[in-house]
Amino acid sequence: MAGLLVGRANEIETRTGVRFELSAIAVRDTARPRPPALDPALFTGDAKGLIERPDVDVVVELMGGLDPARDLVELALRAQKPVVTANKVLMAQAGAELAEVASANGVDLLYEAAVAGAIPIIRPLRESLAGEQILRVMGIVNGTTNYILSRMTDDRMDYAEALAEAQALGLAERDPTADVSGDDAAAKAAILAGLAFGSDVLGTTVEREGITGVRALDVAYAARLGYVIKLLAVAELVDGGPDVSVRVHPAMLPADHPLASVRGPFNAVFVEGEAAGELMLYGRGAGGAPTASAVLGDLIDASRNLRSGAHAPAPHRAPTVVRPTEDLRSAFYISLDVQDRSGVLASVAAAFGAHGVSIRVMEQDGLGDEARLVFLTHTAREGDVRATLADLRTIDTVEQVGTVLRVVAPDDAVKVAP
Amino acid sequence: MAGLLVGRANEIETRTGVRFELSAIAVRDTARPRPPALDPALFTGDAKGLIERPDVDVVVELMGGLDPARDLVELALRAQKPVVTANKVLMAQAGAELAEVASANGVDLLYEAAVAGAIPIIRPLRESLAGEQILRVMGIVNGTTNYILSRMTDDRMDYAEALAEAQALGLAERDPTADVSGDDAAAKAAILAGLAFGSDVLGTTVEREGITGVRALDVAYAARLGYVIKLLAVAELVDGGPDVSVRVHPAMLPADHPLASVRGPFNAVFVEGEAAGELMLYGRGAGGAPTASAVLGDLIDASRNLRSGAHAPAPHRAPTVVRPTEDLRSAFYISLDVQDRSGVLASVAAAFGAHGVSIRVMEQDGLGDEARLVFLTHTAREGDVRATLADLRTIDTVEQVGTVLRVVAPDDAVKVAP
Repeated sequence: MAGLLVGRANEIETRTGVRFELSAIAVRDTARPRPPALDPALFTGDAKGLIERPDVDVVVELMGGLDPARDLVELALRAQKPVVTANKVLMAQAGAELAEVASANGVDLLYEAAVAGAIPIIRPLRESLAGEQILRVMGIVNGTTNYILSRMTDDRMDYAEALAEAQALGLAERDPTADVSGDDAAAKAAILAGLAFGSDVLGTTVEREGITGVRALDVAYAARLGYVIKLLAVAELVDGGPDVSVRVHPAMLPADHPLASVRGPFNAVFVEGEAAGELMLYGRGAGGAPTASAVLGDLIDASRNLRSGAHAPAPHRAPTVVRPTEDLRSAFYISLDVQDRSGVLASVAAAFGAHGVSIRVMEQDGLGDEARLVFLTHTAREGDVRATLADLRTIDTVEQVGTVLRVVAPDDAVKVAP
Repeated sequence: MAGLLVGRANEIETRTGVRFELSAIAVRDTARPRPPALDPALFTGDAKGLIERPDVDVVVELMGGLDPARDLVELALRAQKPVVTANKVLMAQAGAELAEVASANGVDLLYEAAVAGAIPIIRPLRESLAGEQILRVMGIVNGTTNYILSRMTDDRMDYAEALAEAQALGLAERDPTADVSGDDAAAKAAILAGLAFGSDVLGTTVEREGITGVRALDVAYAARLGYVIKLLAVAELVDGGPDVSVRVHPAMLPADHPLASVRGPFNAVFVEGEAAGELMLYGRGAGGAPTASAVLGDLIDASRNLRSGAHAPAPHRAPTVVRPTEDLRSAFYISLDVQDRSGVLASVAAAFGAHGVSIRVMEQDGLGDEARLVFLTHTAREGDVRATLADLRTIDTVEQVGTVLRVVAPDDAVKVAP
């Protein structure tokens, strides 16, 4: 980022009329060696002092995490210095209140890089679609999990193998928990809900399921039925609104859905609007250069606004009720490891029937110890499906409830059980 | 559009803080019956008088065409009234000079709806990617031709059959020339070149080829090789810039290219940036509601800016040289209808060889009167390919030079022949 600012300052000035000068870079450890292209005198350990310096006009926050980023960003905004950040945790946990501070002080708080890297998603949602009634935002916003699921789909790898490869390629951390558990996507889902619906949802409260339970067998079965498994961050109106659902989980998407062809480390956000119809924004979700590109776009915007005395419109906030996923209705994919004995299906079917969950397709896979029953249900209330699963776990001949996935239909609209 | 403005005025005010009041609607024919939801007193035949009315703050131009739209838009801008337009011909022919007028008068000229309907493309290119070195913009920006090519690809229709169906569905005009000739896409290519590179290219000067020559056989052959045929509007740097190429033509795209899965009436714009990498913006390219959504987004933006005294940054203009396509290098697909006689291939191959066009794959298709030779070339200069085609047309045993298509490689970069 610093390299881009220094190296391309002339070109950026020609193109945009904004001349950037890098005042200083606050770092945790001033003793660590830094890129030779950057003057060592630029580095300081005093972030607070840097923000307060009178020759600093705009602050870029790339430290990540909530503490001390939150206090520092607030300090900058109160000093009427616009802030550009790539910090998804900060925006997911404190975005609403920081936006208030920014608005009250008449400066910008811009965060295009916090969701889906270089893909323009924040500005389109906030500006291009300002007049649009958004119905649903559904994103592939975590490149690590999408890489793993793509390898499982395209190359029939199992989860452990795909994860190991992603780690070897530097696409997954040594401890991959934040990605594979859905935590990272949950923070982004909260940000998307705020943009699309003005919902003030904390990232930590978003219901989430990760991909660790997805098996090669599930991926193969999905493919056979014309589906692809993707980890989705979803924010949508429930029953036409104003209540919303905000959640993260793997789902079976029809293979011809635009999100289904988003492969490897790419990200995409699919938006359904009442007038605009279906939109998708696609690109590289992570990496130094794409993130720097998004930060630079915001930096130019914030600087132009600072000069003209304008600032980005304050986001509309509406107190919204977030409905728990157990209230939602969806079709489900359910796989069960069972004993290959007569009578198994009868007792399993009885459990479904007892909770009013209707089976659309059933298939037995494997024999003997490897026997598996795979179900696709008709649309059912998630709470009823969970109650069914609890009952299934008590049946002797059911050895394990395997993967459970929501199935996204091409023209899905979320409805709450009556 | 008028319905949306009137019907949703309260909701738009709550969400955006902007209250719209529809002052009047200038129409060509005031006698024509209008929607009952709109007060007949709103309609006037005097567009000029309407623009000059002191209670009119913002002007929306949806009349289309160059005359009288150009004069009216200029009149509004000189009266310091921001203009929102969906007029691609106007922006392709007079966009640069009208942008100057807008900038000199400190007001906005916004035109998100002029390219690719509701898809946010203008604002992302102009703002999100303001600091980005864009390398290439490649769009499927005409829904009619994409529908026809999709039906030819997915359902093995021939061109005439797919066109007739599109006409029956209202997706193609009775006279489809503007779409199938590439004229519509050429105007959009000029606008994209202006946004991406600051090029001042007139839409009428953009080199173009339409889809009327694409045959079912070509589509089938492309599929067999793992390609899909799409009509592309392209604006790209040549040899790293500053010269550009701006053009419209059908092309063979690898089936796993993100643009390849854009089907039916959908549009998409694929952007390659130096730091941002590959981006794609996808959605509905036409239709009343998507267009209205884009106009409304611009209208909210222009109104907020009017109130704050700011305006969208003047687009950066750079005098750019547009290189003729004959200077460019690409791989080509060429099909020839030939007589099934010995010696044909030898004379054809000699013609290729004489111009230094090297053949990568050759295949004979059909027998006797139906005999066809299909070639994929290595990368060649387009001028040399044209010279080859001219020679081929003089060979007795070559009955007809059939379809000629550029082949887009996944990692294509345009280079000029040395």
